Amino acid sequence: MISKKMQSLVASSSTIRAMFEEGKKLAAIHGEENVFDYSIGNPNVEPPENIKLAIKEILDEEKSTYVHGYMNNSGYDDVRETIALHINKKNELNLSKENIVMTCGAAGGLNITLKTLLNPGDEVIAFAPFFGEYNNYVNNFDGVLTVIPADTETFEPNIEVLSEKISSNTKAVIINSPNNPTGVIYSEETLKKLCDLLSKKQEEFNTSIYLISDEPYREIVYDNCEVPCVLKYYKNSFIGYSYSKSLSLPGERIGYVVINNDMDDFNDVVDSLNTANRILGFVNAPSLFQRVIGRCLDAEVDVNVYKRNRDLLYNHLIKVGFTCIKPQGAFYLFPKSPIEDDKKFCEDAKKFNLLLVPGSAFGCPGHIRISYCTSYEKIEKSLDAFTKLAKLYNLI
Amino acid sequence: MISKKMQSLVASSSTIRAMFEEGKKLAAIHGEENVFDYSIGNPNVEPPENIKLAIKEILDEEKSTYVHGYMNNSGYDDVRETIALHINKKNELNLSKENIVMTCGAAGGLNITLKTLLNPGDEVIAFAPFFGEYNNYVNNFDGVLTVIPADTETFEPNIEVLSEKISSNTKAVIINSPNNPTGVIYSEETLKKLCDLLSKKQEEFNTSIYLISDEPYREIVYDNCEVPCVLKYYKNSFIGYSYSKSLSLPGERIGYVVINNDMDDFNDVVDSLNTANRILGFVNAPSLFQRVIGRCLDAEVDVNVYKRNRDLLYNHLIKVGFTCIKPQGAFYLFPKSPIEDDKKFCEDAKKFNLLLVPGSAFGCPGHIRISYCTSYEKIEKSLDAFTKLAKLYNLI
Repeated sequence: MISKKMQSLVASSSTIRAMFEEGKKLAAIHGEENVFDYSIGNPNVEPPENIKLAIKEILDEEKSTYVHGYMNNSGYDDVRETIALHINKKNELNLSKENIVMTCGAAGGLNITLKTLLNPGDEVIAFAPFFGEYNNYVNNFDGVLTVIPADTETFEPNIEVLSEKISSNTKAVIINSPNNPTGVIYSEETLKKLCDLLSKKQEEFNTSIYLISDEPYREIVYDNCEVPCVLKYYKNSFIGYSYSKSLSLPGERIGYVVINNDMDDFNDVVDSLNTANRILGFVNAPSLFQRVIGRCLDAEVDVNVYKRNRDLLYNHLIKVGFTCIKPQGAFYLFPKSPIEDDKKFCEDAKKFNLLLVPGSAFGCPGHIRISYCTSYEKIEKSLDAFTKLAKLYNLI
Repeated sequence: MISKKMQSLVASSSTIRAMFEEGKKLAAIHGEENVFDYSIGNPNVEPPENIKLAIKEILDEEKSTYVHGYMNNSGYDDVRETIALHINKKNELNLSKENIVMTCGAAGGLNITLKTLLNPGDEVIAFAPFFGEYNNYVNNFDGVLTVIPADTETFEPNIEVLSEKISSNTKAVIINSPNNPTGVIYSEETLKKLCDLLSKKQEEFNTSIYLISDEPYREIVYDNCEVPCVLKYYKNSFIGYSYSKSLSLPGERIGYVVINNDMDDFNDVVDSLNTANRILGFVNAPSLFQRVIGRCLDAEVDVNVYKRNRDLLYNHLIKVGFTCIKPQGAFYLFPKSPIEDDKKFCEDAKKFNLLLVPGSAFGCPGHIRISYCTSYEKIEKSLDAFTKLAKLYNLI
């Protein structure tokens, strides 16, 4: 008999993963070329060629017991220092290796951060729409996730509602920009407002309230947009980063957490992140890929591939009558469902072999997520199906 | 302010890791060549050359978005199938990929298994001496670890005491053979007795009691010893495996969990392991190294290097008057401390630049762990220090 917590989790398992499995089933029936799987964020752009070269160089140049061996739970010192300097250069900061803990992707980073912060019953606040896994990450440590409803005009955090909801029981606020599922980049103005509010509330409640900025899409931005850096606006801030998207390495589980220099109880937090890395069973971020990152900080995937995809699909959706905010980053579109019941709409989409994810999975019903990290040709081929779907709902 | 759970954990942090850090400090003072760090199990034997070749072949032959991409949370189907067949061949079993979940090392595997099984307050039983991290892994899911005191003659599990302690609240029993820290391989007879008892107790209490066999040292055995396979003796059994030691890849975090075919609630358990892999933030075992394992199942590190180390150090310890069980596997010696206070003894050892770990860290005070995965030459050089330590305690 599995544990009670896992019983309910297994029963409600991940909607996105379920779609992924369903896609494979549909592909078996209709042929893979005729199924349009827009469900999962598995990058289709190849990792930069530098990655392959760096791996081979490391294998030839560095001692194998070092490359594949244990290091401190926080990761290799030289790699962490290199990453700190890289972030400094981009953001005019003053970080060193002490501010960096290498993690098993952003998912690992968020888990060790929440394990560090949460006592049972502590509140974590997220803004809809949000990555559904936050529910599970918070639940892992018996925290309670409070969701601030979406501002469906701008899809930016609703600071007014946050101001009403935040309490002395609030331990952390999670944000995600560029956002999954909307692709919206939170503006500097909004982030400053958010940070000002948190500072004020900390003082009012005499507590520490931590801001966790989940940024796996930081590098996936279009039209020269910039992603503001929260470290500049709020002392109790973490950044969770991953190379899953920016270097197309999602399976390798490599990322890091940045801890703000001025954070309350800085040393305890760092020690706790390291201990959590160890005892949750990560032990350390995978070693070879830590060393690869150390050599590839300037490597980038070709973001234009995603931009072309966005433009093609966004323009078509608008043309056939959907309402959708234009994403500035990430690789998702988040159009409004023509009917309130987004799950029914996704079921209808399947009739045209379109696999879409209901917005309810992101705390934002009435919308649907389309993950366009797939080939341009496949998107072109799918446009007709979107047109048919629009016709079914009399959008055109 | 970090969470209460983490406050006490950070305060008591890992003794072994602390020694590792201390070793670096001593090395800075006395020179690395004059410090004998026997504290951590970081394999010094190089990974087999096949590993490097396999990595390069994979990079050249397989599609990069596949090699570094997401797959099912349980891992690549073909790799899991290959591993299942490999285990079948060695043990005359009938496993398939359905029985295998790829994990971030054994630590990741134990954590997803305990997350799957434990409700708050559930009891897990371990036999001293045991790997101290079990305390933390069980605590992660609010379980309670009960320790059966060591049988310091044989260092085999004490089944009689288990029989008295086990209750309807017992959810799992963890064993570790070849054992860290003793190097003892639990005999087939002992395992059969253990499994018979568990079967009887399950029936008596009308519960499921799971046996978790933590086997990262399965391949590190000497003198043609065999490690019996628990899957044959008990239906509710898991094996947690890691390639950290057998292929000298501890930093890469690659291993797997095997689920017995006949386990109660097999499907729920498998679904839960996959879900736990996802939501604890592992998501999946690192992808490139999964593919490497798929190509390197017959690769082996040169165990004779460890055997030579064992023989050299074991013989010397006996010669200078220590009492110690002769290890059949793993790469640890677990001699009796000449005084009851093993921590004081380890402090005294430091005077001779010997870094040893107190047995109390393994639930077995009055002993010390010596991790001999270091170079033969270094061990030779350290023998004099052990002689001096023996003289300090009038052993010779």
